[in-house]
Amino acid sequence: MWQGVLPAVTTKFTPEGDLDHAEMERCWGLLLDAGCDGLIVCGSLGEGSMLSFEERLATLKTAQRIAGSKPVLLNVAEAGTREACELARAANKAGASGLMIVPSPIYHTEPRETVATLRTIAAAGDLPVMIYSNRVAYRVDVTPEILEDLADDARFVAIKESSDDIRRTTEIFNRLGDRFDVFTGVDNLAFEALTAGAVGWVAGLVVAFPRETVAIYRLIKAGRYAEALAIYRWFRPLLDLDVSTYLVQNIKLAEAIALGTNERVRGPRLPLFGDRRDRVEKLVRDAIATRPNLPPLD
Amino acid sequence: MWQGVLPAVTTKFTPEGDLDHAEMERCWGLLLDAGCDGLIVCGSLGEGSMLSFEERLATLKTAQRIAGSKPVLLNVAEAGTREACELARAANKAGASGLMIVPSPIYHTEPRETVATLRTIAAAGDLPVMIYSNRVAYRVDVTPEILEDLADDARFVAIKESSDDIRRTTEIFNRLGDRFDVFTGVDNLAFEALTAGAVGWVAGLVVAFPRETVAIYRLIKAGRYAEALAIYRWFRPLLDLDVSTYLVQNIKLAEAIALGTNERVRGPRLPLFGDRRDRVEKLVRDAIATRPNLPPLD
Amino acid sequence: MWQGVLPAVTTKFTPEGDLDHAEMERCWGLLLDAGCDGLIVCGSLGEGSMLSFEERLATLKTAQRIAGSKPVLLNVAEAGTREACELARAANKAGASGLMIVPSPIYHTEPRETVATLRTIAAAGDLPVMIYSNRVAYRVDVTPEILEDLADDARFVAIKESSDDIRRTTEIFNRLGDRFDVFTGVDNLAFEALTAGAVGWVAGLVVAFPRETVAIYRLIKAGRYAEALAIYRWFRPLLDLDVSTYLVQNIKLAEAIALGTNERVRGPRLPLFGDRRDRVEKLVRDAIATRPNLPPLD
Amino acid sequence: MWQGVLPAVTTKFTPEGDLDHAEMERCWGLLLDAGCDGLIVCGSLGEGSMLSFEERLATLKTAQRIAGSKPVLLNVAEAGTREACELARAANKAGASGLMIVPSPIYHTEPRETVATLRTIAAAGDLPVMIYSNRVAYRVDVTPEILEDLADDARFVAIKESSDDIRRTTEIFNRLGDRFDVFTGVDNLAFEALTAGAVGWVAGLVVAFPRETVAIYRLIKAGRYAEALAIYRWFRPLLDLDVSTYLVQNIKLAEAIALGTNERVRGPRLPLFGDRRDRVEKLVRDAIATRPNLPPLD
Repeated sequence: MWQGVLPAVTTKFTPEGDLDHAEMERCWGLLLDAGCDGLIVCGSLGEGSMLSFEERLATLKTAQRIAGSKPVLLNVAEAGTREACELARAANKAGASGLMIVPSPIYHTEPRETVATLRTIAAAGDLPVMIYSNRVAYRVDVTPEILEDLADDARFVAIKESSDDIRRTTEIFNRLGDRFDVFTGVDNLAFEALTAGAVGWVAGLVVAFPRETVAIYRLIKAGRYAEALAIYRWFRPLLDLDVSTYLVQNIKLAEAIALGTNERVRGPRLPLFGDRRDRVEKLVRDAIATRPNLPPLD
Repeated sequence: MWQGVLPAVTTKFTPEGDLDHAEMERCWGLLLDAGCDGLIVCGSLGEGSMLSFEERLATLKTAQRIAGSKPVLLNVAEAGTREACELARAANKAGASGLMIVPSPIYHTEPRETVATLRTIAAAGDLPVMIYSNRVAYRVDVTPEILEDLADDARFVAIKESSDDIRRTTEIFNRLGDRFDVFTGVDNLAFEALTAGAVGWVAGLVVAFPRETVAIYRLIKAGRYAEALAIYRWFRPLLDLDVSTYLVQNIKLAEAIALGTNERVRGPRLPLFGDRRDRVEKLVRDAIATRPNLPPLD
Repeated sequence: MWQGVLPAVTTKFTPEGDLDHAEMERCWGLLLDAGCDGLIVCGSLGEGSMLSFEERLATLKTAQRIAGSKPVLLNVAEAGTREACELARAANKAGASGLMIVPSPIYHTEPRETVATLRTIAAAGDLPVMIYSNRVAYRVDVTPEILEDLADDARFVAIKESSDDIRRTTEIFNRLGDRFDVFTGVDNLAFEALTAGAVGWVAGLVVAFPRETVAIYRLIKAGRYAEALAIYRWFRPLLDLDVSTYLVQNIKLAEAIALGTNERVRGPRLPLFGDRRDRVEKLVRDAIATRPNLPPLD
Repeated sequence: MWQGVLPAVTTKFTPEGDLDHAEMERCWGLLLDAGCDGLIVCGSLGEGSMLSFEERLATLKTAQRIAGSKPVLLNVAEAGTREACELARAANKAGASGLMIVPSPIYHTEPRETVATLRTIAAAGDLPVMIYSNRVAYRVDVTPEILEDLADDARFVAIKESSDDIRRTTEIFNRLGDRFDVFTGVDNLAFEALTAGAVGWVAGLVVAFPRETVAIYRLIKAGRYAEALAIYRWFRPLLDLDVSTYLVQNIKLAEAIALGTNERVRGPRLPLFGDRRDRVEKLVRDAIATRPNLPPLD
């Protein structure tokens, strides 16, 4: 159902800390212009947990305004199933293309609970669902066994695979064939996952470097592995910024440098400072200085 | 400022899933009757993350109604600092005795952020604060270094030490003397922590076995270690239920057996089932069957 | 200097527990006939730590007898640097093609110690060296930084990359270009590592399934990724047996089934038993039953 | 059978790297004079893995010469069961009081293998055995369940509990009563383990600070917890040096400062250098400067 490069976008704030819809439109528009295949809002990169219910719906609407016919997904990552269902229903009413669902971001569900909460939220939202499996961040693993259990509900169409173990991609294919659209959710495993058969990339650094991200994706899908690998090697120091406790601040700083936007975050986050900031800034500037020429993509 | 046994109470629900204030009054009253020194509401054992803002304040009020002059603390564990401040202000207005604050339950703050968010929330609430340090559950560690940094704000009066490493108790004393009231927050390290100098116990199994918990505490504080150790050894298989992904369900089942209450939980949790349920049920029944006679506590 | 598929062979024992040189010749000969590019003896899969000094040299000689002009490497994995140097000198004298060196299998060296011991052992052996970097098994990591430090000694020609993180392959290329021959040492990351640029595969399951292993390697190097991936997906449940505490017993059982050899091990290992044995046996038999036809390789 | 403070002594080397028996006699004699209850040689702190078979027996003999009627144990920690049995037999012949046995320091045995290898080595040595359980260093855990399985062989008399989890002490008592002499093997958990019922302390920093170690032990056993705790708090920064990858170098540096001995180690270890050395040196000098007066122990 879905494929390609789906940016998990950052949320833009005004100096007063409110949503800056104009700046979101500008930045996200650049991604769509560069060839991205849709948008995912209010994910962990979008500081979804620090946004109110109403702010999340407003952010969704802004994305819908500029996405045209491309899909826009809203991330659902509530501590309680009740609240998750409420948000899922509101997303449906607001016309979202689909939901990305984190099974349980606070309590670490065991498999039967994982299945139950995913089914309950999906039924409430009644939209196509990308399951977000990230045992590293949330200590809940949506394993191939669990996917098999969920396969009878057609709402579950995709899996965002963020187990941090590249082996999982092949395990899903071996167990489930192409029942689910497999997306990699880990920027610095993307070449490996896409080469092993993933059909999409829920991407992070794409928000600052959309053309390079799209190029890697399309070159791999065209069987032009060597060309893709060359860009990927250049891109890797930046992609590593996505796999970090500080991914939001890292990527917002990269955006600020690359796109001329701001890097405001909400508490408890602070913008990067000190050595860490210096290192990230240098990485981004070095990457820009050595930016490869992209080959024609067809 | 605070000391003794402070139960982190569970939240009681009606069959419809709403708050059951009458049952909370009944169960919590048993704890106070048994000699507990106060109450902490809406913690992780209280499913605080699955309660709405209003429900948390209502739960606080119920606890205040029965606690008399003993302190009642409200747990604050919000993903965003903004929402945490809002809850802290409401707790103050509602007359809470103090706050227990989790620095950042979703994002893993680095030390400067940990300090900043704790200071901000404490200032908003303007109440005495017990800092809840639990690097295992939240992957944010409030180290002795950070405590030292926070020591200049007199609102920070206590630390709930749940690092899961008994060494930490001595490290806090070595660095900070008795600046902070050190509470152990790990049931099955309580004998060790209290013997090493902790002044209080934020307890879990106490909600089902209050008299035994209070006895261990008081015996240690009276220097009657051997008597305390004998009860503790009997209690350990139960206390282990507090150090588990399934602590809420474990302890609610223990309460159901010991106090004749229900074990309802909110999603994504399910009540225990299968082998795990059988094991816990057997543990609780065996413990009840071998319950020790408690010595006079003076 | 080296490339291709290098089996880390198992050691064969007689019913009395002594070395069974005839059976080693038979089994290893099958590997070379199937197109393997050399042999590595006395590695962890070869139970090197359970062999005496003399047994290791005898095993080396057996391998040399049948390898012809293909390289034979001896693994050096001694707790003490003194003993490692002694073995390295003996390997040189015995005409080994090279050494595979584990920096420190008991004590966990810090980087300066890692460099010092690797340099000392390499100098004593004065042979080409493949550095065996396996932080999972030995908790010593030979990072790209350390490789850079070692690059001035021409004896260090190759790295067996077993960090269990596929990202490392690209990191080595980004930092060191092709200074070192990068081998993957993790069977179930081999497709990913070889497509990302590794030039060789120190393989495990190859000892039971040599033709399939060689086919995957050669197809990737010929740019025929889709054909390689199809075989790899079939092979994955078997390759997973290499990434296990019980890899020796797993792989010896696979060999016993596939090649009609025995699965004897030395203590403290016992042959597989119970459910684990049943699972492995079923995996191997299922794989044999569904063995793919291999495409012509040139 | 055994109890009290048993130092796991360091091994002394001459400038040429050979054993320095005279210096070992001098240093170990200080420990016995201070009231230690025996000696354990060739443990991990004694760099046993870097000593030859003959050197280990020579070290044992040196310890026996000065220990008088106090017990001397030889550590057995061989990769292969065959070699472990050989060493155990030699220790018996040399008149060792007992063996400390590490089940399997390279391969990570599963429980049935752990039991089998421990039984085999104990039978070969036919001496009283202290089982060394250290899942952190060796990733093999001798659990209470395994102890229960081994309890029918009277040779197993003691357990050196180094699981790094203080809970384990109580778990052993709850499951096995006093069938085994429980020793703590973790310096900076010693107060906690001894107050929870352990009967002995296999100690590390004792080699530099024997009188303080013995004082803590005896005060606890006399029920004088507060006096013991005061010394323990002073001692903790030093005791932390025992729980470190660099424990050998740390403790040898402490010995060098406190006893005027040398700190030579065997490769792959290097003596401490840089910031780490400065920190340890400062810790030791600060501790000496603030050394508490020890109360009379009667």
